[in-house]
Amino acid sequence: MKSGRRRFLKSGATLAGGLTLGSVAPAIGQTQGIGQTPGTGQTPGPEKFIKAGKELVAYGERSRFVTSVRMGHPPGGRPSPDEFGLSFHISTPLQEQMGVITPSSLHHVATTRGSFIPDIDPREHRLMIHGMVDRPLVFTMEDLMRLPSVTRIHFIECAGNRSTAAAKTVQETHGLSSCAEWTGVLLSVLLKEAGVKGGAPWILAEGNEEVKGTSSIPMAKAMDDCFVAYGMNGEPVRPQQGFPLRLMVPGFEGIFHTKYLRRIKVVDQYYTNYNEYGHLRKDPKDAALGYQIGPKSVITYPSGGQQLAGRGYYEIRGLAWSGGGAIRKVEVSTDGGRNWKTAEIRGTANRMAHTKFTYNWNWDGAETELLSRCTDEIGQVQPTRAQIAKFFNAPADHHSFNVPGNDNSIQPWRVARDGSVHNAIA
Amino acid sequence: MKSGRRRFLKSGATLAGGLTLGSVAPAIGQTQGIGQTPGTGQTPGPEKFIKAGKELVAYGERSRFVTSVRMGHPPGGRPSPDEFGLSFHISTPLQEQMGVITPSSLHHVATTRGSFIPDIDPREHRLMIHGMVDRPLVFTMEDLMRLPSVTRIHFIECAGNRSTAAAKTVQETHGLSSCAEWTGVLLSVLLKEAGVKGGAPWILAEGNEEVKGTSSIPMAKAMDDCFVAYGMNGEPVRPQQGFPLRLMVPGFEGIFHTKYLRRIKVVDQYYTNYNEYGHLRKDPKDAALGYQIGPKSVITYPSGGQQLAGRGYYEIRGLAWSGGGAIRKVEVSTDGGRNWKTAEIRGTANRMAHTKFTYNWNWDGAETELLSRCTDEIGQVQPTRAQIAKFFNAPADHHSFNVPGNDNSIQPWRVARDGSVHNAIA
Repeated sequence: MKSGRRRFLKSGATLAGGLTLGSVAPAIGQTQGIGQTPGTGQTPGPEKFIKAGKELVAYGERSRFVTSVRMGHPPGGRPSPDEFGLSFHISTPLQEQMGVITPSSLHHVATTRGSFIPDIDPREHRLMIHGMVDRPLVFTMEDLMRLPSVTRIHFIECAGNRSTAAAKTVQETHGLSSCAEWTGVLLSVLLKEAGVKGGAPWILAEGNEEVKGTSSIPMAKAMDDCFVAYGMNGEPVRPQQGFPLRLMVPGFEGIFHTKYLRRIKVVDQYYTNYNEYGHLRKDPKDAALGYQIGPKSVITYPSGGQQLAGRGYYEIRGLAWSGGGAIRKVEVSTDGGRNWKTAEIRGTANRMAHTKFTYNWNWDGAETELLSRCTDEIGQVQPTRAQIAKFFNAPADHHSFNVPGNDNSIQPWRVARDGSVHNAIA
Repeated sequence: MKSGRRRFLKSGATLAGGLTLGSVAPAIGQTQGIGQTPGTGQTPGPEKFIKAGKELVAYGERSRFVTSVRMGHPPGGRPSPDEFGLSFHISTPLQEQMGVITPSSLHHVATTRGSFIPDIDPREHRLMIHGMVDRPLVFTMEDLMRLPSVTRIHFIECAGNRSTAAAKTVQETHGLSSCAEWTGVLLSVLLKEAGVKGGAPWILAEGNEEVKGTSSIPMAKAMDDCFVAYGMNGEPVRPQQGFPLRLMVPGFEGIFHTKYLRRIKVVDQYYTNYNEYGHLRKDPKDAALGYQIGPKSVITYPSGGQQLAGRGYYEIRGLAWSGGGAIRKVEVSTDGGRNWKTAEIRGTANRMAHTKFTYNWNWDGAETELLSRCTDEIGQVQPTRAQIAKFFNAPADHHSFNVPGNDNSIQPWRVARDGSVHNAIA
C-alpha cells in the first residue's frame, strides 16, 4: 500500500462511506490532523508502575486517570427527602460511554429516595407469586437460580429522560437511559409454575422499598418477554439496580422494572402505578407512549460541552434504542436537518437495547447543527420535537410539556465556529 | 392455565426440551424442589437500608453480600518476582459468572509481574506505527478516539488455561478465559494511514511493560479483524487489562493481546514472541493450535466444588468459545459421555466470544459425570483429553503435556451421590 492510500487525512481522499473529505492543511499537527510523524519528544513516554496489593488481585479497579461519574439529575433538581439530600435521579455520563454496555457502577438510577438503598441479604430474600393463581408460591434466590435462565442485553430508560433548553450535556439531556446484559428467569416460567387462572389480565409487581411502588403490567407482556433478573453485566444485580432481584420489562419505561422484587400478584384489573402522573393511562393515545419507550437516538460525540480540535475528520457516534424492538436504521444530518444520510450500525442491533451508530464526518469549520433519528423494526420513526409537542398539544418546551409518556424527540447539537458544541434546543 | 401445567416440579412433567422429569417427592421443600407454598416465616423479609453518601451517586458498588473474587493461578503456583509475591496469573470466578460479559473487575489477568501495574497518563501515551511503512506515524489517544471505531464482544484466553487433576473448581480449570465488550480502532485503519510497504508479512506489537513482550502477528490477521481497544465494557480499558490501549487479536491466545500498546512495527520476518515456550512456532502442526484458540467449552454449573441440593431439576449452564469464529453447536452429556444431546445457545453466538449454553437436566440422585463439547462455525469439534494428548504425543496429564498450544479438551465433572461436584480428571 502506498502513502496515497491514507484515508482520513489527505486532502480529497474518499472515505469508505463514499464521502469526500474537504481540504485539510498539508502539515499534520495535533490541533489539525490525526497522527504525527515521529520526532523528538514524540516517542513513547517513560514507564511508571503502581504497586498492586492483594485487593487488586481479588477485584480490579479503574485507572486514577478515569474520572467519569454519575450526577444528580437534573442539576439542581429535586433532592431526595432524606438527610443527605441526594437526588431522586442519578444520570449516566453518556458523553464518555464506549460501546453499548453501561458499566454497572455508572448505570443511571431512578428512585424515590436517593440516599437509602435497601440492604438485602439474598439468603433471606423471597419472591412470592400469588393472587389469581392455582398455587401461590414463594421462591428463594437459590430456587430461582436453578430454573431455566435467559441472558439478554436491554436498555432501561426513565420516562423522565428528556432534553430541555437548560440541559448542557448529553448526560443532562439523555443520561437516564442505560444498557446492560441481564440474566434471570422468564416470568412466564414462574407464572406457569403457579398456574395463572384463566383470563387474569394483569399482574402487579412490588419491590422491597420503603415507598412501595407497584406496577400494573398486562398479562400478555408478562408472559412474553419479562424476566426476573439476578444477574447484570456478569455479576449479581447491583444494590442501586435492585439487588438481589429486578423485574425486567423490556422496552417499557423504567418504573416498571421493579427493583428489590418481592411480590407478583395476578389480578383482574389495572391498578394505578405509583408515581406522580400515573404513567399508564387508560386513554389509548396516552398509553401508546405511556409505557413503551418510543424510538430514540442521540449523538454522544460530538455532544454538548465537548470541544472539537478544529476542522477535519470526526467520527460522529451515538446510541439508538426503542421499546418497539430492534433498531433498523439510523440517519444523521450534519446540516441542521436539511439532508439525512444513513449511519452505520456497529455491532449487533439487539431488541430493546442500546445500539451504537457511527457516521464519518468531515467538519469544514462552519457553524452547523448535528442531528440523528432512528427507525425501529416495527417501522416507528423518531419524531421531531415539534411533532412531539403537537402530539401532546403542548408548546415545544419541557417545563410545560407534562406529557404522560416519554419524550423521544430528535436532539440537535450546535457546533460553533470555535469547535465548541452546544444544546441547540431553544 | 391449570396447576397441572407446572413444568419443572411435578412428577412426570415434560420439559420444553423433550425431557421427562423423574419422580419428585410430592411435598415441596427447600432441599428437594423449587418454590414453596407461602406460610408463616415465608413472607418477604423485613426492610433494611444502607445510607448512601455522595460517592455512591458518583460511582456505584456491588452488594456487601456479593463476594466473588479473582485468585492467584494456579493456587500455590508461580509467584510474581517482586516484593508482594503476587501471582503471574489471576483467574476469574467462572463458577459465579452470570451471562457472557465478564465484569471488568473480575476479568482474568496474565502478566509477568503481578504486583506492578503500569500507571499511564493517557495524555502522555503514544502509539507509534513504523518499520516497513511509507509514513511512520505517532498517535495520541485523542487522535485514536477520533478515528472510525468498532465495538465487538470478544474473549481473551491465556494459553496456560488448562485443567489438571489438581484443579478443584472451574475457576482453577478454566478461569484464565474472560469475555468483554471492546471498543477501538481497526488496526487496518492505522496501517492504511501509515501505508504498508508491499509484501510486508508480519507486524510486531510492543507494550509499555517492564518486561516488554513483543508479539509477531501475521499481516493477514492484522488487516482482518485486529483492533486497538481503548474501551472495555463501556468504560476505558482497566489498568490490569492494558490501560489506555490494548491490541485485540480476536481468537488468538492471550499473549498476542498486547497491553499498554505503544508500538507496532511492520517487519519482513517472524520474530519469536516473549514467553517460555515460543507460542508461535514454525512447525505448522504446532502453529495450528499455537496461536488460534481451539473450540472449547465448559460447564460452569454444576461444576467442581459446588453442591447440589438433591435430586430434581437443574439447569446445566456453561460457556463455549473458539478462535475459529462463532459457536455453532454445543452438546452436553449427563452420563459420562455415552449419550450427547444438543444444548440451547442463549443469546447471540458472537464470533470469538464466550457463548452461553444451557441444558435442562433432571438429576436422579445417582453418581454421574457431566461433560460438554462444542463445534464452531468452521466445523472444528472440541477434542477429548485423550485426543489432545495423542495429538501432542504426550500422556493425558498436564504436567508432562508441555504443549505449545492451548489445551481445549473436554472437561468432565463428577456428581457424587451426596450432590457434591468434583473435577473428574484422574
